[in-house]
Amino acid sequence: MTDMRVGVLGAGRIGSLHARIVAEDTPGAVLAGVADVHAPSAEAVAARFRVPAMAVDELVASPNVDAVAICTSTDTHVDLIVAAARAGKAVFCEKPISLDLPAVDRALAAVADAGVPFMVGFNRRFDPAHRSVHDAVVDGVVGDVHLARISSRDPSPPPLDYIRVSGGIFVDMMIHDFDMARFVVGSPVVEVYAKGAVLIDPAIGDAGDFDTASVMLTHANGAVTMIDNSRQAVYGYDQRVEVFGSLGLAASENPDVHSGITITREGLRGQVIPHFFLERYAESYRREWRAFTDYVRDGGPSPVPGSDARAPVVLGLAAGESARTGAPVRVTEG
Amino acid sequence: MTDMRVGVLGAGRIGSLHARIVAEDTPGAVLAGVADVHAPSAEAVAARFRVPAMAVDELVASPNVDAVAICTSTDTHVDLIVAAARAGKAVFCEKPISLDLPAVDRALAAVADAGVPFMVGFNRRFDPAHRSVHDAVVDGVVGDVHLARISSRDPSPPPLDYIRVSGGIFVDMMIHDFDMARFVVGSPVVEVYAKGAVLIDPAIGDAGDFDTASVMLTHANGAVTMIDNSRQAVYGYDQRVEVFGSLGLAASENPDVHSGITITREGLRGQVIPHFFLERYAESYRREWRAFTDYVRDGGPSPVPGSDARAPVVLGLAAGESARTGAPVRVTEG
Amino acid sequence: MTDMRVGVLGAGRIGSLHARIVAEDTPGAVLAGVADVHAPSAEAVAARFRVPAMAVDELVASPNVDAVAICTSTDTHVDLIVAAARAGKAVFCEKPISLDLPAVDRALAAVADAGVPFMVGFNRRFDPAHRSVHDAVVDGVVGDVHLARISSRDPSPPPLDYIRVSGGIFVDMMIHDFDMARFVVGSPVVEVYAKGAVLIDPAIGDAGDFDTASVMLTHANGAVTMIDNSRQAVYGYDQRVEVFGSLGLAASENPDVHSGITITREGLRGQVIPHFFLERYAESYRREWRAFTDYVRDGGPSPVPGSDARAPVVLGLAAGESARTGAPVRVTEG
Amino acid sequence: MTDMRVGVLGAGRIGSLHARIVAEDTPGAVLAGVADVHAPSAEAVAARFRVPAMAVDELVASPNVDAVAICTSTDTHVDLIVAAARAGKAVFCEKPISLDLPAVDRALAAVADAGVPFMVGFNRRFDPAHRSVHDAVVDGVVGDVHLARISSRDPSPPPLDYIRVSGGIFVDMMIHDFDMARFVVGSPVVEVYAKGAVLIDPAIGDAGDFDTASVMLTHANGAVTMIDNSRQAVYGYDQRVEVFGSLGLAASENPDVHSGITITREGLRGQVIPHFFLERYAESYRREWRAFTDYVRDGGPSPVPGSDARAPVVLGLAAGESARTGAPVRVTEG
Repeated sequence: MTDMRVGVLGAGRIGSLHARIVAEDTPGAVLAGVADVHAPSAEAVAARFRVPAMAVDELVASPNVDAVAICTSTDTHVDLIVAAARAGKAVFCEKPISLDLPAVDRALAAVADAGVPFMVGFNRRFDPAHRSVHDAVVDGVVGDVHLARISSRDPSPPPLDYIRVSGGIFVDMMIHDFDMARFVVGSPVVEVYAKGAVLIDPAIGDAGDFDTASVMLTHANGAVTMIDNSRQAVYGYDQRVEVFGSLGLAASENPDVHSGITITREGLRGQVIPHFFLERYAESYRREWRAFTDYVRDGGPSPVPGSDARAPVVLGLAAGESARTGAPVRVTEG
Repeated sequence: MTDMRVGVLGAGRIGSLHARIVAEDTPGAVLAGVADVHAPSAEAVAARFRVPAMAVDELVASPNVDAVAICTSTDTHVDLIVAAARAGKAVFCEKPISLDLPAVDRALAAVADAGVPFMVGFNRRFDPAHRSVHDAVVDGVVGDVHLARISSRDPSPPPLDYIRVSGGIFVDMMIHDFDMARFVVGSPVVEVYAKGAVLIDPAIGDAGDFDTASVMLTHANGAVTMIDNSRQAVYGYDQRVEVFGSLGLAASENPDVHSGITITREGLRGQVIPHFFLERYAESYRREWRAFTDYVRDGGPSPVPGSDARAPVVLGLAAGESARTGAPVRVTEG
Repeated sequence: MTDMRVGVLGAGRIGSLHARIVAEDTPGAVLAGVADVHAPSAEAVAARFRVPAMAVDELVASPNVDAVAICTSTDTHVDLIVAAARAGKAVFCEKPISLDLPAVDRALAAVADAGVPFMVGFNRRFDPAHRSVHDAVVDGVVGDVHLARISSRDPSPPPLDYIRVSGGIFVDMMIHDFDMARFVVGSPVVEVYAKGAVLIDPAIGDAGDFDTASVMLTHANGAVTMIDNSRQAVYGYDQRVEVFGSLGLAASENPDVHSGITITREGLRGQVIPHFFLERYAESYRREWRAFTDYVRDGGPSPVPGSDARAPVVLGLAAGESARTGAPVRVTEG
Repeated sequence: MTDMRVGVLGAGRIGSLHARIVAEDTPGAVLAGVADVHAPSAEAVAARFRVPAMAVDELVASPNVDAVAICTSTDTHVDLIVAAARAGKAVFCEKPISLDLPAVDRALAAVADAGVPFMVGFNRRFDPAHRSVHDAVVDGVVGDVHLARISSRDPSPPPLDYIRVSGGIFVDMMIHDFDMARFVVGSPVVEVYAKGAVLIDPAIGDAGDFDTASVMLTHANGAVTMIDNSRQAVYGYDQRVEVFGSLGLAASENPDVHSGITITREGLRGQVIPHFFLERYAESYRREWRAFTDYVRDGGPSPVPGSDARAPVVLGLAAGESARTGAPVRVTEG
């Protein structure tokens, strides 16, 4: 069988990451080209993997490309999805598709019209530990789900310039956790209550955002998920998921960077946790690409379909509204 | 120095527990007598420790009693506090003092008027692991507190007869967690948002209560505490506290019942956690009595003063209101 | 059914411990008296539990005593066993019976002649974690046993006066581990190879002993157990057992003193382990007395019979010989 | 600065692994060619990384090669080291150099005469967890070393054909642990006592080897290291190192394959450990190549010099002798 030829759109940090995984670490896929509006960036990444640098339009239209990976800035996602879908390409798009729901719907409609494979890049679903929590629910180990807890804390805040255009902590950062809540609990969210605070850096507040956020999600089945986010966990990238139900608990703890310890008069000393997502989620990106490759080749339902792209945006926007108004917000995911 | 002579009021499960600890395991304290409105209960416990069984009034008035431990049903606490305070006894009272705030205030006023030592039995404050979380905050290890998480789950629901008169999950069960949130975060609560659900047993709902509860507390300093309660964790008594701040995290995990493990083809297998509070908090009760004994002997501030008895009731009542109305409730603790 | 009346012989640290457990924490047993050649010691312990202090002979002969707990110095064990057995008492004896094998045999013969219940106090067999390792072997979870590892390290050396009369590290300290090896592996030992070193305190070497010891035991079934002992683990009482076999591994790890942790930029920080045997093995002593009480009441095989008292002495003496000669020593346990 | 051009000799499992790391994951190094006596193997690996396949002699002589990685069968190592050294290449050689000590010395002499960089591939020294144990000793955290324990167990035995030519478990498998013992304890070994057993598969015994092995090493400073090996740990690749000393303990535990757990009525359930060395030691190989690259570029002492290549062979041969004769064997490492 012929390998899927992947063109990567966007040669920044996340685009380079996807290019490397496709080029070196995804059986059944090959890197076909890299494009970026900033040509030297595309050329640098392309040279590293000995593939052509292209213009964005050229790559989307290329007969040598079977699938595109959209890793550009969020505001360009929808147009690129539409263009790629019309060109008959399989589409992998980084999260979020857009912070504008009608635009999201426009992108998803284009995908549906074209009948092309589509998957959104919620990589954490492919992390083995988080997935084991999901699997424990699906396999019945946890029983009926009653409660979930998600902590998601970055090691340090992004630049203020980034924060100003990010859409706010609830859509920029917590969107991953909204996806995770839906993924592991398996019941739609019907209400969102959110609190935001500025406890780390007043400049983040001046930029109109929060740096610390807490959300309570009520699911249709009565379960409640509690999520907390911080822009600064000084000890590393804190990523934990827990689901509690009628038969037990499943959880994904933080891994250690390695398994060495010391024990002295002062007690046990263990290691730090992984610094950030490149270390923590390396395996998830690999598995994400294997899942996308298998899906494009074999068909079947998308590993992360359009509906899963849309709902977290709905929840993120509702959380922002709740934090602003101080009242819970009822939502309809679909 | 003479030992403090303690009379125990109430000879049920918790009264027997306190009687045993005073009789056998508290240096500086001796058991002086046991009283119960049900005389045979008092006699059974008294006989076990070879001390006199008394009538309640008799014990409160006895010149051979320096301190009383009030372990009777909640509705009798206030009158017993008032009577004991007027009799000049040091007062140890099980939580909660009362679910009626004016009554709480009446009890605390009587204590203040009499100038007697007073401590409320929030035993979890004396658990070494939970206290280590509190100490990590006080000692500055955690830095400024931004977030806290508390899970508190019983192994199985109490009898429906108990639930009907309990005042509801927010004051009966979560009151401990409200106290813990205040204890570890160290900032008053200004808002309560609560969700209750009936996911374990519909009969609990028919009795007018919830069996699963989630609460978000906003503290005056901007920190948020998220608490979850379940009446039924089938794997045991799940009791965890975590505080996150500008310099790091402190947490109290579940202990194992013992440290034996197996590793087979199926992976690691560890032990269950302690079944319920008698196993989990045995050490906390011992330390609680040492703290009360030291406080009565040496003076100084109460280890758990009247203000700490009142605030959790305020929060529990507010949580009940929030769960009923669906809206956040502003509170003033003091 | 009438409670077993226990007389404790020896009112030192370990005698007091047993007296307390019998008096307060062993259903079906009561403390009947305490004796010690040093009468004030016996009186102090007896007063604490409101039982009579007796002379040693008096206690052994007393019609009010059903069982004796021999907690005196090792050199007196054999004569006391013989006397108690002849007096028809059930006998609990602290380890070791004697360092002189003919004397051990004399004691066991007296017990056999009298037909009285007999158990030797290898308390670690009753530790829930170590016992879970034994049970995993017996229950087939581990499969055929191939290897075992035991680490046993004290927090600090005993006084030199004690070391001089102790019989040496292999019989004084490692005897517990020889018993544990036999208990968890379940196959007799046929060869002992031992190394001793003086690495902690030269005065221990001057006293004719080692402070650090390593032993390799070969079992009849081909399995090998490796044991290490140190007189000084500065971080606490390090007690670990592991068995490896054809189907997996069972292990008993060190418990934490409590389950609180912190995580900061410097990484995870956990607690110290228990300081010494009173903290670490408190539960084992409780269970040991329950086992002895059940055995005396119900009959059946002894929880730790005479043969288990003898074999560790054989191994300890062989280890001492191996360490002196530098050659492995073949042994016959029985 | 120009990248170091590496030619890989041997295109089997371990040669392919090294080729991949050099080609894709070692800054400062590039893959220059691959050679194998079996040309199709060399061609397959070379094609994968788009480099030339060469004959062995051609690669060793090539002016386009700065360094060779010797990954061929053990019996060819010495001649290739000599040839590469004479050709002025930096030499990386897989362990062991040879099981014949005069041949080892001949190889090391050729390296010394040529003055070329030389490093032997004891990759476990570069595992972050094991290295943290070494570092804790070097940094003084452990104090003076008194005891060490190493468990090293494969998931399943190699083919009998391999075992027959392997030199036996002590040189084929435990050689890594002899190196680790020297690495973490930091004192030469002066005595070896070894036990071998056939407990897994009688066919291994028929092939003249053991499948289970236990060794006690005595170091010059009085410390003792206990090592156990099994050819079959059904639960995965069990690799643990522990050092105990005057100030505490440092240990390298088994990592989990991921951090997901479940807790049910049956207790905690964790994951399996990594299956074998490719999973467990992936990071160590990466770091090994960075260390070799830095060393060749910057000079200074070899990360794993010739003396460290020789001593484990001495210990492995002595262990084999001890297991055969039943007596401890004195050794001189140098």
